[in-house]
Amino acid sequence: MIPNDSIVALATPSGAGAIAIIRISGQDAIQIGHSIFRSIKNKDLTTQKTHTLHLGHIMDGEKTLDQVLVSIFKGPNSYTGENTIEISCHGSTYIQQQIIQLLLRKGCRMADAGEFTLRAFLNGKLDLSQAEAVADLISSDNEASHQIAMQQMRGGFSNEIAKLREELLNFASLIELELDFAEEDVEFADRTQFHELVNRIEFVLKRLIDSFAVGNVIKNGIPVAIVGEPNVGKSTLLNALLNEERAIVSEIAGTTRDTIEDELVIGGIGFRFIDTAGIRETKDYVESIGIQKTFEKIEQAQVVIYLSPLTPKGGTLDNVKLELEKIKNQYPLKPLVVIMNKKDLLSENEIQNIQNQIPNILLISAKNKEGIENLKNQLLSFVNTGALRNNETIITNTRHYDSLLKALEEIQKVKFGLETNLSSDLMALDIREALYQFGLITGQVTNDELLGNIFANFCIGK
Amino acid sequence: MIPNDSIVALATPSGAGAIAIIRISGQDAIQIGHSIFRSIKNKDLTTQKTHTLHLGHIMDGEKTLDQVLVSIFKGPNSYTGENTIEISCHGSTYIQQQIIQLLLRKGCRMADAGEFTLRAFLNGKLDLSQAEAVADLISSDNEASHQIAMQQMRGGFSNEIAKLREELLNFASLIELELDFAEEDVEFADRTQFHELVNRIEFVLKRLIDSFAVGNVIKNGIPVAIVGEPNVGKSTLLNALLNEERAIVSEIAGTTRDTIEDELVIGGIGFRFIDTAGIRETKDYVESIGIQKTFEKIEQAQVVIYLSPLTPKGGTLDNVKLELEKIKNQYPLKPLVVIMNKKDLLSENEIQNIQNQIPNILLISAKNKEGIENLKNQLLSFVNTGALRNNETIITNTRHYDSLLKALEEIQKVKFGLETNLSSDLMALDIREALYQFGLITGQVTNDELLGNIFANFCIGK
Repeated sequence: MIPNDSIVALATPSGAGAIAIIRISGQDAIQIGHSIFRSIKNKDLTTQKTHTLHLGHIMDGEKTLDQVLVSIFKGPNSYTGENTIEISCHGSTYIQQQIIQLLLRKGCRMADAGEFTLRAFLNGKLDLSQAEAVADLISSDNEASHQIAMQQMRGGFSNEIAKLREELLNFASLIELELDFAEEDVEFADRTQFHELVNRIEFVLKRLIDSFAVGNVIKNGIPVAIVGEPNVGKSTLLNALLNEERAIVSEIAGTTRDTIEDELVIGGIGFRFIDTAGIRETKDYVESIGIQKTFEKIEQAQVVIYLSPLTPKGGTLDNVKLELEKIKNQYPLKPLVVIMNKKDLLSENEIQNIQNQIPNILLISAKNKEGIENLKNQLLSFVNTGALRNNETIITNTRHYDSLLKALEEIQKVKFGLETNLSSDLMALDIREALYQFGLITGQVTNDELLGNIFANFCIGK
Repeated sequence: MIPNDSIVALATPSGAGAIAIIRISGQDAIQIGHSIFRSIKNKDLTTQKTHTLHLGHIMDGEKTLDQVLVSIFKGPNSYTGENTIEISCHGSTYIQQQIIQLLLRKGCRMADAGEFTLRAFLNGKLDLSQAEAVADLISSDNEASHQIAMQQMRGGFSNEIAKLREELLNFASLIELELDFAEEDVEFADRTQFHELVNRIEFVLKRLIDSFAVGNVIKNGIPVAIVGEPNVGKSTLLNALLNEERAIVSEIAGTTRDTIEDELVIGGIGFRFIDTAGIRETKDYVESIGIQKTFEKIEQAQVVIYLSPLTPKGGTLDNVKLELEKIKNQYPLKPLVVIMNKKDLLSENEIQNIQNQIPNILLISAKNKEGIENLKNQLLSFVNTGALRNNETIITNTRHYDSLLKALEEIQKVKFGLETNLSSDLMALDIREALYQFGLITGQVTNDELLGNIFANFCIGK
């Protein structure tokens, strides 16, 4: 049974701001709102139209708690599908608490994490993967993760899965029907068509499963190690990379992002610089970082930037070449960018000399902002963003990934069964298992534990 | 000229939450909103009624930034008095930034601190003291400060001032008229009635000025020093005092108040415990705190709690009495509460013995929660909350206090002039000055510097 008691929560971030939103959802939400609201124009909240706003005061008996705006949403035309009101009050923590406490006394209870979205799911406003996209959307912090969450929320991914499940379900019924006529040895399900469908499903599943690699990169960012001798200018390089970003962010007052120093978004993909604290404090290092320490950093990274020291006047770069050899031998498959800063100090001849010794070296000038765009493009080239650019469905959710892997396993069993003329009753079992895994993704199959796990990761108020 | 370009700001606290509100105000606000909004139901935002809500997507060209709800408020029926829209989007910092950047490109500019409320003032939606009350309301963190801010926002205080100013203005015109007929020596202004008015104004001003003492206490809390030997149980006492509060606060998930450990609200009044960090770490102290250190603490406090050690078996409290004498000699007027904890360990005889030696001592048991209410009542009794209980106007704003003091000075000059038959032209100067000071409070007289100072203290988005 779908619960319809009235739940309440603060929907805006905690702390003081100009406005705070308190959200109430449930069968009696409007009635409860009415009981604590005194309209400026003496309006009766319970007789107002849906999607309207009303100015008035929240009253605790004869005591005025705040002047507020109340939004009314009548089920099913609300986020949860239930009657919902949102109280837009002044953002003092004290006022928020007073109003929520009053609502608790009037019969509401505190909402659990994600409970508004859970209700939206239970009331059929969203399927399960759309509901999960809501949480992804709230936590999205760059263009790519935002775009994927938006796509998933619009149902792109689950529509595809649901459609495949539908087709599979048709064949499943036909095959189960065959079981009833087992002695007559009839085939209601056209084996050729079925084989074709199973191949198609296998293809889609594999593509979705493959997309998880890029999805994961997009969701969690790409770890990048900047290595090289101390005092070689790692922090200068990082600052040069981050500079543009900062200007944009600081333009919008009120949104502080301290973590930006460690993360850089290029072309919508987040790059996380490993041990940047260390990088920024290299001036304090007294001893050189040995190759072992360098290897430890590289181990954690997906991309390596090697920052070369300036070549001594007319000298060779044999030391650098030796170190690069070590890295390449140890990690032959890891993308490596070799950089030398302070191009502005070099003569044409010197540049020629350096490029002769290390052909792929990228010469930049952090000071003159020369070569920075080049470096960014090179970093981005390591990420296979084809799927992203082509607007294909990308999986970012570990739960979906697990279910897809299991579904693939079952589908491959079905395929093997088809190819080896397995009996219908055994094949039916594998099909059922695949259907079950599909259903888990969209929420057509659920259980309390699954729902509990999913919505526990939401914030309160959503 | 009142500006009406479109300003935008995040109105909810920064950081991630379920919902964020982006507010836009200005002549073109609805038009700008329309240009980036694609309604689910193909509605045209510019033709919608005021106080309605609309579901749709924020579009950056063909790119969907978010699914949002847009609220429409048509001037003058809005907070600012201008056309206003509020975009309720998903609470990701990334999304907030994207939408705000899009709005900046569409011709909005970032709002200054308090600029929405400044416009509300300039458009006559609020007077100046009401506008200031908005900031007080947002920062109110206990019942008393909240109640005063609510009262001030409803105009109680400024109505009173405006009414007195009105009456004074009438007499001022009459007296200025007399100047035109100076040679005829007429008196248009009835000197007896005028004297009566001036007395009345003086009385009201004095009452308001006096109320600042309690207003200040309410706004900033009362500093309390807990003194006594180390290891005497100061942290136990503080915990016992704070316990109830905590239970209430932790009930509302999502609202964290770390500072509560240092502040306790009793009867709506905040009590701040000085150097509680020290108090909580007394176990680590090795040397006794000398009397000098105690005096330093008392210096900063308005109320002193002296926590006595347990009396040794059958012993005397001569040391405690000596120390109390020192405190009383140094600070004869400072309220002092003497407490002994662990009443539960004492026999009837011992209690009698202690009370014989220190008659006013308060025996409590933090463990059994005995005497805690008593202590709270005693703390509260030091605050003259009569004005608060009687719902009288209380001044909390230093700016108002200054203006009231200056107005009183001028009114007393006028009174002196009346009593010494000062010439009308000199008296008129004093009256004008008093009128000016009154006007500064309500905003009937303003200047850019004054407005700048007031609204700079607001948060962005209000």
